[in-house]
Amino acid sequence: RIDSARLWDSLMQMAQIGPGIAGGNNRQTVTDADAEGRALFKRWCDAAGLAMGVDKMGTMFMRREGTDPEALPVYIGSHLDTQPTGGKYDGVLGVLGGLEVIRTMNDLGIKTKHPIVLTNWTNEEGARFAPAMLASGVFAGVHTLDYAYGRKDLEGKTFGEELARIGWVGDEEVGARKMHAYFEYHIEQGPILEAEEKTIGVVTHCQGLWWLEFTLTGKEAHTGSTPMAMRVNAGLAMSRIFEMVQEVTMAAQPDAVGGVGQVTFAPNSRNVLPGKVVFTVDIRTVDQQKLDGMRDTIEARAADICAELGVGCAVERVGHFAPVTFTPELVGRVRAAAEKLGYTHRNIVSGAGHDACWAAKVAPTTMIMCPCVDGLSHNEAEDISPEWAAAGTDVLLHAVLETAEV
Amino acid sequence: RIDSARLWDSLMQMAQIGPGIAGGNNRQTVTDADAEGRALFKRWCDAAGLAMGVDKMGTMFMRREGTDPEALPVYIGSHLDTQPTGGKYDGVLGVLGGLEVIRTMNDLGIKTKHPIVLTNWTNEEGARFAPAMLASGVFAGVHTLDYAYGRKDLEGKTFGEELARIGWVGDEEVGARKMHAYFEYHIEQGPILEAEEKTIGVVTHCQGLWWLEFTLTGKEAHTGSTPMAMRVNAGLAMSRIFEMVQEVTMAAQPDAVGGVGQVTFAPNSRNVLPGKVVFTVDIRTVDQQKLDGMRDTIEARAADICAELGVGCAVERVGHFAPVTFTPELVGRVRAAAEKLGYTHRNIVSGAGHDACWAAKVAPTTMIMCPCVDGLSHNEAEDISPEWAAAGTDVLLHAVLETAEV
Ligand SMILES: NC(=O)NCCC(=O)O
Ligand SMILES: NC(=O)NCCC(=O)O
Repeated sequence: RIDSARLWDSLMQMAQIGPGIAGGNNRQTVTDADAEGRALFKRWCDAAGLAMGVDKMGTMFMRREGTDPEALPVYIGSHLDTQPTGGKYDGVLGVLGGLEVIRTMNDLGIKTKHPIVLTNWTNEEGARFAPAMLASGVFAGVHTLDYAYGRKDLEGKTFGEELARIGWVGDEEVGARKMHAYFEYHIEQGPILEAEEKTIGVVTHCQGLWWLEFTLTGKEAHTGSTPMAMRVNAGLAMSRIFEMVQEVTMAAQPDAVGGVGQVTFAPNSRNVLPGKVVFTVDIRTVDQQKLDGMRDTIEARAADICAELGVGCAVERVGHFAPVTFTPELVGRVRAAAEKLGYTHRNIVSGAGHDACWAAKVAPTTMIMCPCVDGLSHNEAEDISPEWAAAGTDVLLHAVLETAEV
Repeated sequence: RIDSARLWDSLMQMAQIGPGIAGGNNRQTVTDADAEGRALFKRWCDAAGLAMGVDKMGTMFMRREGTDPEALPVYIGSHLDTQPTGGKYDGVLGVLGGLEVIRTMNDLGIKTKHPIVLTNWTNEEGARFAPAMLASGVFAGVHTLDYAYGRKDLEGKTFGEELARIGWVGDEEVGARKMHAYFEYHIEQGPILEAEEKTIGVVTHCQGLWWLEFTLTGKEAHTGSTPMAMRVNAGLAMSRIFEMVQEVTMAAQPDAVGGVGQVTFAPNSRNVLPGKVVFTVDIRTVDQQKLDGMRDTIEARAADICAELGVGCAVERVGHFAPVTFTPELVGRVRAAAEKLGYTHRNIVSGAGHDACWAAKVAPTTMIMCPCVDGLSHNEAEDISPEWAAAGTDVLLHAVLETAEV
C-alpha cells in the first residue's frame, strides 16, 4: 500500500501554489502559477530519481528506468493545471498519485521490466485556451502543433507565446513516444460513487463532447431610444438558444448533458443593446450518433432562432472528442486490483473528458476514479477524503505493477 | 445664425480624443481620455473669455458674464463623456453647440442681462459607473455625494478615486448654483425626426427609466459530469428572465422599451456552469405608473423563474429617473425659434435620459433635438449632418437669447 500521509501532504503543498479566492486553486495553464507548480513537481521527481523529458507542448515526462530499457514504458498521467476557480484535486491527484506510486516502489526497492513514465499534460482544462486536453490531443495526432500554438485566450494571447514566456517549450517532437499502456487516476467529478458508497470507479467509457462557440451579431443601439421594432437583439437570440439547448438535452435523457459556461457581451454597457454576443455550448453523451445529432439540431435551430430576429449567427466547433471505450484488459486489471485490496467498486462512465481519452487513440488505456464530495468539481469547494485519495492510488499501484511486470 | 463650419470643426477636433475602434469614440467618464477632452474644452472656453467653476463631482461650469451680474444665469449643458463604443455627437454636440452659441454672441458683441453658463456634466453615460446622469443627479439632490463617490466600475475602481486620479475634483458644493433656466441640445438617438424629415425636435417629455441589476447565484459545477437533475443553472434562469423582459415589454406597447446590455458570467469557463451571473435590465416608458408596474412584474416573475430552478435571485435598483414634462414656456420658445428660423419641427419625447431630466427638478428646463442617421446611437457609426448640427444650434442660440434677455 502507498503512504497515504505523504500523498496528502504533497497534495496540500501543491495547493499552496496559485491559490484561489475560496480555498481552491487558480493555476491555469501556462501562467506564472503553472510554472511554479511545474517547478515544485520537478523538484519532487528529481528527488525520486526520475529523468525528465519535455515535448514542444510543454508536457513533462518523468522516467523511472525498467530492467529492460528496450521495453515500452507504462505511462501514468494527468494534469496540474486548474480551472480559474478550480479545486485542489482535479488532475493533481492523478499526477501526485502517480508520484506516490513511484515513491512507494522506490521505498520498497521494486524493479519493473517496463520503465514507468509519469506525465503532466499541458492544458488539460481548456479553460484559458480551448479545446481541453490540448497537449494530449496533439500527442495523439488529433491537432497539429500549429493549431495548438495559435489558440487564443480571452485577452488574445496565444498558447504558443505563453508557453514560451513561462519557459516550458521542450525539444521533443510531440507524440514521438510509444506507450505500452496508459493509466490515469482522477476524481469522479460527479455524484455517483459517493451516492452508492463505492470507493473505486472502474472506468469503462468516457462521454464524447462537442463545444460549439456561437458568435451572434446584433445591432449596437441605444436601449432607451431604439423602438422595439427596430432592434436587432443578439442578447434575446442568445437567451432563446440557451433554452433550446436545454430542451434538446432534456429530450436526449437519461444520459446526455448540455449547458453554457462562457458568455461575452460587447460592448457590455447597460444602455447599449449588444452588437456582439459570444458563448460556448457544451454537450456530451456516450453515444456518438446521438452526440452528433444533438450538435446538428442545436446548430440548425440556433440558425432559425437568429434568422427570425435578424441576428447574424456563426458557429465554430472549438472542441470535440468522440466517446471512448477503454481497453478491456486494463479495465480488468483495475477491477482485479480493487477486488484484491478489498475496496468497494463499480463500473462507471466518465462524464468529463480526460487526457486518457486522447491517449486511448495511441495506446492501451484506462482510468481509475475515486469519489468526490457532492459530485462537486470545477468549483473551489471541490473535496475528497484522504482515504479516498489513498484507495485509488493503491489500486493504481497494483494495476501498474501488474502491467509493468515486476 | 451660428458659424456652422466652426461648430463642425470643433466636433471633429474633440472626436480625435479617445478614438474608438470603428470611427467613433471611447472617451468614458473620468478616464485619461476624458481628462484630455476636458483640457481641450477648457482651452476653447478660456479663448472665449469664460470663467471656470468646478464642483466636487467634476462638473465644469463656464461663465459668460451678464449685464446684470445679480441675475440668475441661463445654463446650457450636456456631456463630453461617451459610451465604450460611442459616437462623436451624443452629448458632445450639446456642449460644443453651447460653445458655438457663446462664440457667436462674442462675434456679434451681443450682451445679455442674465449671465450664461456652459456646463459639461460628469458621467452622463453611466457606462462605467451606474447610474447614468450621475453628476446632474447629485446636483439635483437625487443622490448624495457619498453615494456617487462610491459607485464602482467592473474592475472595482470607485468613481471618487478615479475623479481624483484625473485631477478634476473641484471645490464647489454640488447643487449650490441656482438656475434661471436650463437648455440642453442633443441628437435624437432615435429614428423619428429623420423618418419624418423634420430638422428640429421640440422636446416636450422624457421617458422614465429603471435599471434593475440582477445577481443570480447558481452552483459552479462541471458541465460534463454534473447530471441535468443536479444542476443549479443560473445561466438558464438568466435566459428565461431575458425572454420574460421581452414579453413584459411587448405587452406594454406601443410606448415602452426593455432590454439587457450588460452580462457577466463567473467564472466564465466553457466547462463550468456559472456560479454567479450578473446582468442589468433597462426598461423605459413615459408613464410613471406603467413604468413601475413593469418593474414590479419583472422583479416578481424573475423571482419565480429563479425559485423554480433553485437559483438565488437578488435585485438591486441601480438606476432610476421618473418621466419628465419640460417647462411649457421654454418649450414654446424652442418651437418659436424653429418657426422663426424656418426649420421644420415636431414635438418629440426623449427616449434616452439626459442631464436635463435632473435639471428639470431644480430649474425651468427644456431640450432641443436634431435627427441622427438611422436612429443609431450608442454605436460608433452614429452620424449626423453638419446642417442638422447647425440648425439645432441656431435654435439654441435664439431660445437662449430670448430667455437671457438681450
Ligand atoms: N476532467 C476535466 O475536467 N477535464 C476538462 C475537460 C472537460 O471539460 O471534460
Ligand atoms: N442620452 C443618453 O444616452 N444618456 C444615457 C442615459 C440613458 O441611457 O438614457
